[in-house]
Amino acid sequence: MASIKVINPNSNTVVTSAMSEALEPLRMGGGPRIDCVTLERGPLGIESQADVTAVEPLVAGAVQADNEADAFVIACYSDPGLHLCRELTGRPVFGIAECAILTALSRGAGFGVISILPGSVARHMRHLRERQLQHLCVGDRPLGLSVAEVASGADTLRRMQEVGQALRDEDGAEVVIMGCAGMARHREPLQDSLGVPVIDPTQAAVTMAVGAVALGG
Amino acid sequence: MASIKVINPNSNTVVTSAMSEALEPLRMGGGPRIDCVTLERGPLGIESQADVTAVEPLVAGAVQADNEADAFVIACYSDPGLHLCRELTGRPVFGIAECAILTALSRGAGFGVISILPGSVARHMRHLRERQLQHLCVGDRPLGLSVAEVASGADTLRRMQEVGQALRDEDGAEVVIMGCAGMARHREPLQDSLGVPVIDPTQAAVTMAVGAVALGG
Amino acid sequence: MASIKVINPNSNTVVTSAMSEALEPLRMGGGPRIDCVTLERGPLGIESQADVTAVEPLVAGAVQADNEADAFVIACYSDPGLHLCRELTGRPVFGIAECAILTALSRGAGFGVISILPGSVARHMRHLRERQLQHLCVGDRPLGLSVAEVASGADTLRRMQEVGQALRDEDGAEVVIMGCAGMARHREPLQDSLGVPVIDPTQAAVTMAVGAVALGG
Amino acid sequence: MASIKVINPNSNTVVTSAMSEALEPLRMGGGPRIDCVTLERGPLGIESQADVTAVEPLVAGAVQADNEADAFVIACYSDPGLHLCRELTGRPVFGIAECAILTALSRGAGFGVISILPGSVARHMRHLRERQLQHLCVGDRPLGLSVAEVASGADTLRRMQEVGQALRDEDGAEVVIMGCAGMARHREPLQDSLGVPVIDPTQAAVTMAVGAVALGG
Amino acid sequence: MASIKVINPNSNTVVTSAMSEALEPLRMGGGPRIDCVTLERGPLGIESQADVTAVEPLVAGAVQADNEADAFVIACYSDPGLHLCRELTGRPVFGIAECAILTALSRGAGFGVISILPGSVARHMRHLRERQLQHLCVGDRPLGLSVAEVASGADTLRRMQEVGQALRDEDGAEVVIMGCAGMARHREPLQDSLGVPVIDPTQAAVTMAVGAVALGG
Amino acid sequence: MASIKVINPNSNTVVTSAMSEALEPLRMGGGPRIDCVTLERGPLGIESQADVTAVEPLVAGAVQADNEADAFVIACYSDPGLHLCRELTGRPVFGIAECAILTALSRGAGFGVISILPGSVARHMRHLRERQLQHLCVGDRPLGLSVAEVASGADTLRRMQEVGQALRDEDGAEVVIMGCAGMARHREPLQDSLGVPVIDPTQAAVTMAVGAVALGG
Repeated sequence: MASIKVINPNSNTVVTSAMSEALEPLRMGGGPRIDCVTLERGPLGIESQADVTAVEPLVAGAVQADNEADAFVIACYSDPGLHLCRELTGRPVFGIAECAILTALSRGAGFGVISILPGSVARHMRHLRERQLQHLCVGDRPLGLSVAEVASGADTLRRMQEVGQALRDEDGAEVVIMGCAGMARHREPLQDSLGVPVIDPTQAAVTMAVGAVALGG
Repeated sequence: MASIKVINPNSNTVVTSAMSEALEPLRMGGGPRIDCVTLERGPLGIESQADVTAVEPLVAGAVQADNEADAFVIACYSDPGLHLCRELTGRPVFGIAECAILTALSRGAGFGVISILPGSVARHMRHLRERQLQHLCVGDRPLGLSVAEVASGADTLRRMQEVGQALRDEDGAEVVIMGCAGMARHREPLQDSLGVPVIDPTQAAVTMAVGAVALGG
Repeated sequence: MASIKVINPNSNTVVTSAMSEALEPLRMGGGPRIDCVTLERGPLGIESQADVTAVEPLVAGAVQADNEADAFVIACYSDPGLHLCRELTGRPVFGIAECAILTALSRGAGFGVISILPGSVARHMRHLRERQLQHLCVGDRPLGLSVAEVASGADTLRRMQEVGQALRDEDGAEVVIMGCAGMARHREPLQDSLGVPVIDPTQAAVTMAVGAVALGG
Repeated sequence: MASIKVINPNSNTVVTSAMSEALEPLRMGGGPRIDCVTLERGPLGIESQADVTAVEPLVAGAVQADNEADAFVIACYSDPGLHLCRELTGRPVFGIAECAILTALSRGAGFGVISILPGSVARHMRHLRERQLQHLCVGDRPLGLSVAEVASGADTLRRMQEVGQALRDEDGAEVVIMGCAGMARHREPLQDSLGVPVIDPTQAAVTMAVGAVALGG
Repeated sequence: MASIKVINPNSNTVVTSAMSEALEPLRMGGGPRIDCVTLERGPLGIESQADVTAVEPLVAGAVQADNEADAFVIACYSDPGLHLCRELTGRPVFGIAECAILTALSRGAGFGVISILPGSVARHMRHLRERQLQHLCVGDRPLGLSVAEVASGADTLRRMQEVGQALRDEDGAEVVIMGCAGMARHREPLQDSLGVPVIDPTQAAVTMAVGAVALGG
Repeated sequence: MASIKVINPNSNTVVTSAMSEALEPLRMGGGPRIDCVTLERGPLGIESQADVTAVEPLVAGAVQADNEADAFVIACYSDPGLHLCRELTGRPVFGIAECAILTALSRGAGFGVISILPGSVARHMRHLRERQLQHLCVGDRPLGLSVAEVASGADTLRRMQEVGQALRDEDGAEVVIMGCAGMARHREPLQDSLGVPVIDPTQAAVTMAVGAVALGG
């Protein structure tokens, strides 16, 4: 049976569980198995360039040690180790930031990103520029919360709604991307309140991985 | 049961059949039904701006007349009527060119396109520019065949291999897009011979539609 | 005697008359005749993508049916059918949006556009991007009026002045384009009040057509 | 009677005469008078940045000394003094390179330029970049002739045809610009042989000036 | 002994003296001599395109008349005559605006510019576009002071701090460029108060010239 | 006494020695000390994304462990750890690729890069895009040699001349960058044979660091 390995590079199992639950609709009969794993030695959240650098060899190790998965998804919005993993394996490797952006562009002309911390924004912009897609991002606004708070906090949804409204109304976003894998459980209520498509990056990447694996790609 | 309507805007049922067959792996248990329809009043192939203009109201009519489908896919690489249909319905509408490009970008940094006729290239470039993604296309090379020949002809695969090799070796394409819905049956042998991912645009769009519908989109 | 056919794709003869009057200074001795025609079967105003799609075959028909004109001008700021008509005839075809933008750029470094409705703006931006000139547009602001109101309404000029001032002062427009053929009668008072060049798109396109015809072009 | 002053910044009266002759079709009844003047103290041809620098104050002087003209055209493809003259007068000032480029873009998606000398190309590219239109130029190829040879030489047309064919066939130019005011007399035969629109820059700028003056612009 | 000639194109010796003093740390043992000269016939400040045009031949003359210097620096933020001087000599010629921008980009992702007058901004933007670096400038804000006031005025630093803060906080500048050679004496206090790198353009250009001369470049 | 720490992230001391020797002219009286260190645990050459990932924490460690240096230079053309080090220290950190590119742009309009291996090119292009400077690179051509061969091999210069000529003549490079710190000893003969400025990236970065440190940074 074909399978997709979704790697959560942080060590927060609350994030991994919420992510796996959000992927449930993509586990379909005859489709690939979707396995979510936690990198135990990763930081609790990836909130700096130092965190990114620290997890890149761990992500690469998880890919290299796996002889079974038909495709890999790196489930952190900084796409740590994406180019490295592609260098190390011939099997498809998807970054959730990259896939979220591409999926958003299938639904509207300009997208906005809800980030966790102010320090995330410059990192996201560097990645967007590297992909030559920065002109399609109309705004990237931070919540001012940690990854742990985002995944568990009671007030997170209300704050995401505020930021999402600013992206939609002030920046003109036609689609909103949740810029952290730990935001998964908020997608549906956020989309209902904003009235524009809201993209969960892990769902976006796993959708593309399901397609690639199902189609032999 | 959720469903996706795939509209082939040309009247060539050979194209619709091959397309439906190529989508078989995306018909998964618990996933949406995938229905392919032919626009009987469309031209045999969409090979000019006049053909595009002629089918746009037909595509729009097919969308407006449908109260059941949860998402629509316009299965022609010129994405005829895409903006119009989005104006007419709140349900997701996917263009196969747009989705093919975005899917290609999840697999590599620059993509090439195999077109049917020399006259297709300028039309593709206008669409790419409108999407602001033209800088990511490393080449668009025509086969010099009609849509009908592409769908049925014996020599098509060999010609696609030649063009695909030029895109890969001379233009530096890391991914190759088949720039016509009628090329569906050639994806696997072409990918095997080129050694880089080959994207069938209808498969790419339906994958995204399956994700959108499954995830409540 | 050489002639230019100016096609008003909407069926509003008030618009056609105002347009023809605004073109009077371009009817010069020895220069081409300038004929303005109304597409009787067009909508009263072109205010949506659906309206654009509906008039494109009508515009193409008007071009194909004409054996006399030396050049054509499509007098709607959405340039409906421009690429189609160029495919159908070897004679020069000018779009008024395209020509307005190019003429504006001969007078200053960045231009602003006064649109009719909020829904026009996204359509204009798609066209600008397709032309790869979007970086030269400093702003596109809607009046919030219909084409019919713009052509006849008493309050239109005052509202255009407000929007023009915002384009000039907040967006930095060095030139202002009137983004609808139905605004023709307001050009002079608007330019007098704004103190920067104001471009009527039909005048801009017909000027270019006069040059092309006079010069054998 | 309204008038346009066309300033040939070089001192070559053969160029000025040919230019004036090429403008004859734009002298229309009821339209502005078109006066071509030669800058006696200018160089015989503008073939270097040093030549451009030398003529800029002369062009500015010619504009400032004139109290009658309703618009000015700087008739050298380097547009010497364009920004300076605009700083010095409120009346419209047109540069022939700028207008040629804009006029070319009203006729096709990408243009090519026939230059006089290899050293002209880098200068043209700087101007194009300053106008942010460099992405629309598909090629700029030199003849390898001086301005004087271009204006008078017997072999010039044949060489222009060769270069024009390379721009059309190898670079994909849909429109060809003659990148020197001294090429005026070759426009018609060149266009006839190439089968794509050929733009004489002085004609393009004077057409725009005629429109601006006639329309009170 | 190797030497660098720094040409102040304005005739304000207060500017030349402050500039020379600011370059003192770059006069190092074994490194090139750094000579600052004043163009006596230049204007008191370069505040318009007319001033730029007037000094270009003077700057070129100063370069051509010099047989000794190993490199030249044009010490005016409009880089007057840069391309001309490069045409006239094979020795390296540095423009202080160009070098300030490039040096700023070695310290952060986006830079802001403190200009002297509102009229300077459009001129700076033209130069930035010509260099194809305009997308890296996050803001250019004028002080509203003349060159003479900037060089000598008591209130200049306070005003520069205000403008610098706006560039940093509203525009997101990670580095601030002082957009006039006459601002040299304010660099250190400005950098101390802003907390981001502040670039003096003459220092930036002379640093690059020292490297080029020392390295035989 | 002020000092600059130049970190060679590979463990090849031949590279570090050649680099230090090439920096000799920048060790000037009264200027900062320039110390070159080798990362003993680094790979022999940085030739893949895996090598980059491996050295990033080592480079960061070398920066964090140092309390004395006034500025840091990361002496590998992949700029490993540049953003990370800037996150970890307030002192200036220079990447040699970034500085080489910026220095090249002070000498000409477009630059070419001589790389070591075909696999380096895609990595360089990603970095260039992240810096938004990719449009200024006219070509990046590999030698097809390892870092070790480049540093020591007898035939390296001849091969660099061939590649440099192709960059200059076929790609139009006005400046050539040596895209590896291990090429230092070839700069002078290469520049002499090519006749255009040749930039050694370590020299370029150290020049900028000398300026920053001397000027109080």
